[in-house]
Amino acid sequence: MEVVKVIDEQVIDKMKEIVGEDWVVTGKDKIEAYCEDETERAMKPEICTDCVVVKPSRTEEISEIMKYANENNLIVVARGGGTSLSGAAVTIMPSIIISMERMNKIIEVDETSLTVECEAGVTLLNKHENLYFPIHPGDEGAQVGGLVVMNAGGVRAVRYGVMREQVKALEVVLPTGEVIHLGGKLIKNNAGLDLKDLIIGSEGILGLVTRATLAIRPKDRYTGSLVVSFYDENDAVKSVTEIFKRGMMPLAIEYMEKTAILRAAKDIGLTWPSNQGNIDLYFIVSERKEEDLYEVYESIVGICEENNASDSFVAESSKDQKNILDIRSHVYPSMHDNIVDAIDAAVPIRNLPKYMKGIGEIAAKYNVEISTIGHIGDGNMHNSILNPGGVKPDNYEELADEIFKLVIECQGALTGEHGIGKVRNSKLNLQFSETELRLMREIKKVFDPNNILNPGTAI
Amino acid sequence: MEVVKVIDEQVIDKMKEIVGEDWVVTGKDKIEAYCEDETERAMKPEICTDCVVVKPSRTEEISEIMKYANENNLIVVARGGGTSLSGAAVTIMPSIIISMERMNKIIEVDETSLTVECEAGVTLLNKHENLYFPIHPGDEGAQVGGLVVMNAGGVRAVRYGVMREQVKALEVVLPTGEVIHLGGKLIKNNAGLDLKDLIIGSEGILGLVTRATLAIRPKDRYTGSLVVSFYDENDAVKSVTEIFKRGMMPLAIEYMEKTAILRAAKDIGLTWPSNQGNIDLYFIVSERKEEDLYEVYESIVGICEENNASDSFVAESSKDQKNILDIRSHVYPSMHDNIVDAIDAAVPIRNLPKYMKGIGEIAAKYNVEISTIGHIGDGNMHNSILNPGGVKPDNYEELADEIFKLVIECQGALTGEHGIGKVRNSKLNLQFSETELRLMREIKKVFDPNNILNPGTAI
Repeated sequence: MEVVKVIDEQVIDKMKEIVGEDWVVTGKDKIEAYCEDETERAMKPEICTDCVVVKPSRTEEISEIMKYANENNLIVVARGGGTSLSGAAVTIMPSIIISMERMNKIIEVDETSLTVECEAGVTLLNKHENLYFPIHPGDEGAQVGGLVVMNAGGVRAVRYGVMREQVKALEVVLPTGEVIHLGGKLIKNNAGLDLKDLIIGSEGILGLVTRATLAIRPKDRYTGSLVVSFYDENDAVKSVTEIFKRGMMPLAIEYMEKTAILRAAKDIGLTWPSNQGNIDLYFIVSERKEEDLYEVYESIVGICEENNASDSFVAESSKDQKNILDIRSHVYPSMHDNIVDAIDAAVPIRNLPKYMKGIGEIAAKYNVEISTIGHIGDGNMHNSILNPGGVKPDNYEELADEIFKLVIECQGALTGEHGIGKVRNSKLNLQFSETELRLMREIKKVFDPNNILNPGTAI
Repeated sequence: MEVVKVIDEQVIDKMKEIVGEDWVVTGKDKIEAYCEDETERAMKPEICTDCVVVKPSRTEEISEIMKYANENNLIVVARGGGTSLSGAAVTIMPSIIISMERMNKIIEVDETSLTVECEAGVTLLNKHENLYFPIHPGDEGAQVGGLVVMNAGGVRAVRYGVMREQVKALEVVLPTGEVIHLGGKLIKNNAGLDLKDLIIGSEGILGLVTRATLAIRPKDRYTGSLVVSFYDENDAVKSVTEIFKRGMMPLAIEYMEKTAILRAAKDIGLTWPSNQGNIDLYFIVSERKEEDLYEVYESIVGICEENNASDSFVAESSKDQKNILDIRSHVYPSMHDNIVDAIDAAVPIRNLPKYMKGIGEIAAKYNVEISTIGHIGDGNMHNSILNPGGVKPDNYEELADEIFKLVIECQGALTGEHGIGKVRNSKLNLQFSETELRLMREIKKVFDPNNILNPGTAI
């Protein structure tokens, strides 16, 4: 049996020595919030609050903390904004929680190489006038370190990809306390094995990201939104693939069940622009020239009409655009209390009709409501299993198993953006062979031989 | 001392048993060409021809070969088109050479998910009418497996990135013979550690890629070329960064010294469109609409003129475009016999002026000609050290050391696209710390504990 090391006075004193007394937090009341994340109640593993929260301000302090923890077999959990939906940031054992909140400096905006370098505790980076950072996950409290290790996605991944495509360089502290620097302000870099991409999406089990250099983009001057309604989901999928084939690349293409979007609109007292159909596609379009924007609107509507769209609405005014975005953003909160499990599988776009049909059949078979919204442009659907009060139905395990088997049948991934965290580990063998899992676990050992970093997460 | 296993009759018989007698090649004369690649003579390590060439037609055969080799401690070198410029494909010990030439089937073109799945022995994929694959390395004999494990770049990386950005899924045979499947036709995939990106760029030392699924793109209808001349390299660099900042994304932006491009033109009896200036930028532009093409031409020329361009030439006819491309393609062949070492470092675009100034100073100090062409749009320069007959000058080692130290001073990478191969290993410690190299070497051990795959390469 593994002996769990406790966080005792000696550990706390050492933390105070490293970061200063003011930046060490103890006591269940004060640290409880640091042991939690945004995972649905029914899915969340049991939280352990026998922890200490440490708030370093420099990489060197983190290095010292890690070295001490590693030598003393103490668990370390890095904490960013705590916005994980997969339990990646919750503590399940006595842990040193390294909160990154003080490491929130933007170090450099390089307008020539089009990069920004910042500390890992910085939140979303959309404050520059002419340049912007495309990734926009659901919760704006997410910090850069978390975005990196969770390989965040969000709505605007269609044109620019997910976090992985934006990360140019990383500073990472290993469990040994050693600091490594991966990547650079480079488009081409072929020296050595690619450790940078291994850290991206590693959910905090290989090292602690302290700094990141991210690509930023010139801002398009003209943006707009478009809502198109359909009766049949197959028509919606066909429209999306046809739009890509004709070379158009909206920033975002969202799929929403009418019931879900109308509920959200009602909830916040706004009116959704379309009452027809069962499904809406919501496009965010941006172009350098105003005339291109109109041309793209026209082409998209044309393609959708060829594919039996029943209705379309162009949001030209910024007020209309804001309304639509506000309603879309409220879909998740409007059903939050009843969500048992928010499944976020991703499947190839071609297999979306099969996947959505399968989800419908499973919902009918188990007699549960499964509400689907999702990032249709990148095949990443959010199927929320609903039950009053968010309580797991008796047959939840069977139901979830059927959904994940369907995902794999559709050649999909268990998670498109939320990560495996501490809630999907038991399903890993559906997607990966024993050999693939063995390689991952041995790589974990290379980085973290004492298994001190965020155990029970990712693999 | 390590005992080198020889390729004896027993090994050859086993290979014949696995792939059939017709597909096993022995005898120095016949296999010599399979032990070579395109690396400059002065740089190439000593070739060992005590090898056997095996030409499997199926993944299962490769799995059997690997398992046998691993159990018997026999070296395996995978061979694609043999176009490496870093010795990655040369054999330096008695080896089983697995030639992928028979695994040349395109398995599926998926016009919905915009992917193509093919075997690793397929060469460049530009045969589809409306869809295309952007990566175009210098040598069209390159095979997909090689493109993947070398993370190929080439001219057209500015808009669509390098090979890494195109690879959606891989089938890989491990040294144990186990076959793993990584990735999928997915834009978002966050389950487990990212083994796929570890294989990309691994130079054949972790596993043998047998199949790949690659992203393809809708073809723009209108393409054109543009040549702009400058007297001062700083003005050229400033123009490029300004073009990006204004949101334009040509397919390619090439930098060429006038002396190199005029020599190439003369060599093949063609006329280069500009005689002014010391430097030319060569843009390949593509747009969905004809009017956009003209607008982009105009904007680029405008920006270049603001930055002291002396001359510009738009190649509108396909004949003019072909002439320019032919001349550009001949720059490397025109000096090939005199190249000692073709350095292909990459630096952040911001640091290009410092880098080019440094190269000029080193050339003067050592009294050698260093000819520079390069992919300025992605910071990947090709600095060819020239000497009659391609013979290493006496002070080559010092000279090369100074160049690589300059690369690192400019926050660059030792290689932008050719890879470390077997020619740059001694410089790895300039770019990576001991810790970073240790991690890479331990990961190698996880995949290949007996070190049978392409030893002496990459790390």
